[in-house]
Amino acid sequence: MEPAAENSNLWRWGNPANAVHLSQFPKLKLFLENKFGTKLNPDIKIPSFKSAPSRFSENDLKNIFPDLKQNQVSLQEHDRLRFTFGKSYYDVIKMLTTQKIFSPDFVLFPETIEDISYILKQAVKNKIKIITFGGGSNVVGAFDTDASMPVCVLNMERLNRLIEIDYDSHTATFETGIFGPELEKILNEKNFTLGHFPQSFEFSTLGGWLALRSAGQESGLYGKIEDIVLQMKIVTPAGIIENIGFPRHACGPDFHHLFLGSEGTLGIIAQAKLRIHKKPENYFWKIALFRNFENGAEALQEIIQAGIHPAVARFSDISETKLSSLISHTEKKGFQKIVQSLMKSWLKSKGYNEPCVLMMRFAVRNDSDYTAANTAAQIAKKHGAQKLPSSVAASWEKTRFSLPYLRDTLVEHRVFIDTFETVTYWKNLVPLYHHIKKALKSNSDYFDKGGILLCHISHVYETGASLYFTMITAQEKENEIEQWQRLKKIVSDAILENGGAISHHHGIGKDHQNWYLQQLNPETKKFLQAIKNYIDPENILNPGKLIDAKS
Amino acid sequence: MEPAAENSNLWRWGNPANAVHLSQFPKLKLFLENKFGTKLNPDIKIPSFKSAPSRFSENDLKNIFPDLKQNQVSLQEHDRLRFTFGKSYYDVIKMLTTQKIFSPDFVLFPETIEDISYILKQAVKNKIKIITFGGGSNVVGAFDTDASMPVCVLNMERLNRLIEIDYDSHTATFETGIFGPELEKILNEKNFTLGHFPQSFEFSTLGGWLALRSAGQESGLYGKIEDIVLQMKIVTPAGIIENIGFPRHACGPDFHHLFLGSEGTLGIIAQAKLRIHKKPENYFWKIALFRNFENGAEALQEIIQAGIHPAVARFSDISETKLSSLISHTEKKGFQKIVQSLMKSWLKSKGYNEPCVLMMRFAVRNDSDYTAANTAAQIAKKHGAQKLPSSVAASWEKTRFSLPYLRDTLVEHRVFIDTFETVTYWKNLVPLYHHIKKALKSNSDYFDKGGILLCHISHVYETGASLYFTMITAQEKENEIEQWQRLKKIVSDAILENGGAISHHHGIGKDHQNWYLQQLNPETKKFLQAIKNYIDPENILNPGKLIDAKS
Repeated sequence: MEPAAENSNLWRWGNPANAVHLSQFPKLKLFLENKFGTKLNPDIKIPSFKSAPSRFSENDLKNIFPDLKQNQVSLQEHDRLRFTFGKSYYDVIKMLTTQKIFSPDFVLFPETIEDISYILKQAVKNKIKIITFGGGSNVVGAFDTDASMPVCVLNMERLNRLIEIDYDSHTATFETGIFGPELEKILNEKNFTLGHFPQSFEFSTLGGWLALRSAGQESGLYGKIEDIVLQMKIVTPAGIIENIGFPRHACGPDFHHLFLGSEGTLGIIAQAKLRIHKKPENYFWKIALFRNFENGAEALQEIIQAGIHPAVARFSDISETKLSSLISHTEKKGFQKIVQSLMKSWLKSKGYNEPCVLMMRFAVRNDSDYTAANTAAQIAKKHGAQKLPSSVAASWEKTRFSLPYLRDTLVEHRVFIDTFETVTYWKNLVPLYHHIKKALKSNSDYFDKGGILLCHISHVYETGASLYFTMITAQEKENEIEQWQRLKKIVSDAILENGGAISHHHGIGKDHQNWYLQQLNPETKKFLQAIKNYIDPENILNPGKLIDAKS
Repeated sequence: MEPAAENSNLWRWGNPANAVHLSQFPKLKLFLENKFGTKLNPDIKIPSFKSAPSRFSENDLKNIFPDLKQNQVSLQEHDRLRFTFGKSYYDVIKMLTTQKIFSPDFVLFPETIEDISYILKQAVKNKIKIITFGGGSNVVGAFDTDASMPVCVLNMERLNRLIEIDYDSHTATFETGIFGPELEKILNEKNFTLGHFPQSFEFSTLGGWLALRSAGQESGLYGKIEDIVLQMKIVTPAGIIENIGFPRHACGPDFHHLFLGSEGTLGIIAQAKLRIHKKPENYFWKIALFRNFENGAEALQEIIQAGIHPAVARFSDISETKLSSLISHTEKKGFQKIVQSLMKSWLKSKGYNEPCVLMMRFAVRNDSDYTAANTAAQIAKKHGAQKLPSSVAASWEKTRFSLPYLRDTLVEHRVFIDTFETVTYWKNLVPLYHHIKKALKSNSDYFDKGGILLCHISHVYETGASLYFTMITAQEKENEIEQWQRLKKIVSDAILENGGAISHHHGIGKDHQNWYLQQLNPETKKFLQAIKNYIDPENILNPGKLIDAKS
């Protein structure tokens, strides 16, 4: 893999060279146009922005941070704008509709842990907010901040070094500003892998993964980032906090979990020791088509509860299964060909009226992985699954990191496209799926107006799994913000009211804060606030997020 | 399994009906007598104790806790003495040598979470220390306290109810005063298991496991208690704190890890939601004999790093392998017969000069478990292992919870017998083993005087493993305390100086506190102290343990 390219365009995803156009997806375009009853035209023009002037001059910053080198400080328009928005649909429409935007006053580039400590010390003294920036790929309003205090962005990109690899113990310690591809390249050189591949992989950093509790596509085998990390060095206004580490221990509280998911409010995670793994000898797929969502969910539950762990497990509902067949670039090939030819006649006759595809990718580390995969396939069959060829997965493999590019072109065509995700226990999983669909149906005209809701089950555990939804509908012109807020509220309320968590791996940011706070009792909130108050009494670390110091 | 019997004898383990006598182990007795150069006689008489008078009368307690029922309050000698000592060798010799002992002033028996909240409120008001008691099986000086403040023991045994089982999601919620056998019995009725079997299983509680980060013998499959717990309700002077739960989530800090291993200093864990599992269809053993410790350690590392997870993995060094053969009750049977007959001639000729036994117990949940076990056996063979029959494991199965009874009779024969354990990364595992042996050799006359050091590797992870040691030597009469302190210091210093954790699953208590504190940097200590100060500003929760509120 190549090291991370730019992800610096104000709203577009990734590397401009990889951008796609909707015309490359004629079937999808036609399908959406029929659904929405309107032609899709690329008629959005995101205005070009100028940030408000910084409240600091170069000289001011020299006086506040005399120990930093000149190239560690930036007041550049480009740098400041880059840290203004995340990469969600809501970020895009905020750009679309906001006349005046707020950008951080300046950007600092620490190069060492000592730099971070120094910056925090000076920031406390001068009452400057610190927002830590990794790859900028967040989709939860993580940068959303107000202008009441001066704001400094801490760009971690220069803290990107390998500290140590212990091939014997399968551990590696990195600085957290390192991007996914760089980190993976270092490990791959010795035939190792971290195994952490979120969709943002190419444009996100280790620090971002840790601070927002990221999950990779192969979490079934390697776990979420909280399962991967062993030890962290966290720089805070109250000093450098470091947990004991070790594979496991019985040495008092394991406090590093407080900083996982702390989203920049409790400290800057500067270094992390991680579990690494030998690269699997091989990968292979088991693909199964189910008659409906319930059958597939039951099969997947039985597979995982039998102790079988596909690296990737992704079970799409009927809407996602259908739509997936429309985004193959070329005709009559792979997934599209198979699903089309199978679905159109033969399947209906066999009762596959609501065909749903389960894709399981197994990593081969030893022979038992083959046996496990075969047992998984048998369980699927028991639940009525039809085996599909591995080529169905080719589209997933090709687009595993690139679907955001498709999002971009859809947005330019005034398509509302947003994702949300949750996690719950198995008993509640299919009911929650139906509750969310029902909430959208009962509380809006979403489906009446041609809106599409896609869903897949992924990140599967013995006790439950994640549900990942994509909403696609026609954008309400001149009403973009309100439309998003209205739909977001409906689905988020439905999640909480029906026993889901407000996020499994996207995080909280500003977008989920309201629902996050509802999940905590008042005494738990006060407890977290007390921790915040001790670590950050001046409330400079990403204030306004999670539990705020000032209630 | 039967529900927990009494573990209430002041120093003896478990159920008096199961006590053993050294005469049942003639080979062991002879071996030790030869080693120590003295006859072993049961000449220790533990004095019978009277506790100092309580500082409270029945009336005092009625006034302080008017809302409690009469049978929730005890000033009885029996109850108070029971909570004075743990179950370690050090506890026994303290009893042996201390003239005046300190017992808690009174014992309370909460029956609900509300009771606990109420007791804490009154305790804060009246400045009474609270020591939470589960099964009393600790071996790290967890009860060691001073008499400077009044002391109340909170006996959790009446909070022993099942709250909810979700067989669909494989979760169960219990109150934490429940003992291992009761909990397991409830789950077994529906063919489920928690899979958590510490050696103390019969006489320890869920709450104790959580508060001290316990590990069960089958941790290879089910994880340590911190891997098993999903959600906890923790009663503190600052209110009831409850984490978000779910199989995984991205909803901010996961703060329940602060209370795991908090050893009663941060709150009373009252309820816990746990992962449960279908009982495996079957269990089977793979037993292998290696030429030396290094070969077996390498094999075990390769097995676990190939993604193979035996439920139990126990690899004994040469000393433990030898001693294990001496504790079979009957002659010419099972382990003893095989090891004897094999070892005496044939093995030496094949280069098994330092025979070390690896026992792996596999749980069968699906066919891949057989494949995995066979691969594990092949890896062992590659490292020079000789296959042994499964019957070798019969002794382990028989004595898996009962070795403490043997400890008792050894202690009565003036044998010093104590265990300690650590965990480190693979790279450091065998070196740490040798460092500890060397430290004992260089800094004491332990081996010169016939002292025996047994060790096994267990609790195996991809990144490292635990080392579990047993020290057996002749007791230095009239010098019992000093002897223990001297040896404890040598091995604990050696652990820390050579990259081990001071505990993998026993916990900290008073015995490990000194070394625990050395593992934390000053800023981390202050951070933990700040958390303690917020939760427990009056310092009533097990004061003096872990990070004390008053530094």
